[in-house]
Amino acid sequence: MKVGVKILPRTEVLDSQGRAVEKTLERSGRLLNSCRVGKYIQLDVDAATKDEAFEKAKDIAEFVLYNPLIESYELEIL
Amino acid sequence: MKVGVKILPRTEVLDSQGRAVEKTLERSGRLLNSCRVGKYIQLDVDAATKDEAFEKAKDIAEFVLYNPLIESYELEIL
Repeated sequence: MKVGVKILPRTEVLDSQGRAVEKTLERSGRLLNSCRVGKYIQLDVDAATKDEAFEKAKDIAEFVLYNPLIESYELEIL
Repeated sequence: MKVGVKILPRTEVLDSQGRAVEKTLERSGRLLNSCRVGKYIQLDVDAATKDEAFEKAKDIAEFVLYNPLIESYELEIL
């Protein structure tokens, strides 16, 4: 079963990539309110149920994928 | 309106970050079939309708966020 892990920098943390994208878009005349740049990881795990897939993905995300000091994450079953 | 942009390396492209995560998980006894590591960008655009937000996000994604040679992307209205 495929699970997506969306990881974004916490709002308190300076998101330099996001600022860079905002500047570039501003220069090109494309207006937007804000932009945050993070990571997206697609995991393919063996699981009989959505709950099991969710638990496995949570374990993996917390073990190795995200840094709780500066990032927050969200899971989605695909 | 917030729009999420999920960007993943194309399957034909070697995803070295994904391989590294797979190896680390294998060593720790966490089994998974596959893992792909990409980018996640959350845009906040002014738009009256979902369609308008979608169009604006598509324009931004294709202008600056993803590289069509090695990546594919997907949009989601949040």
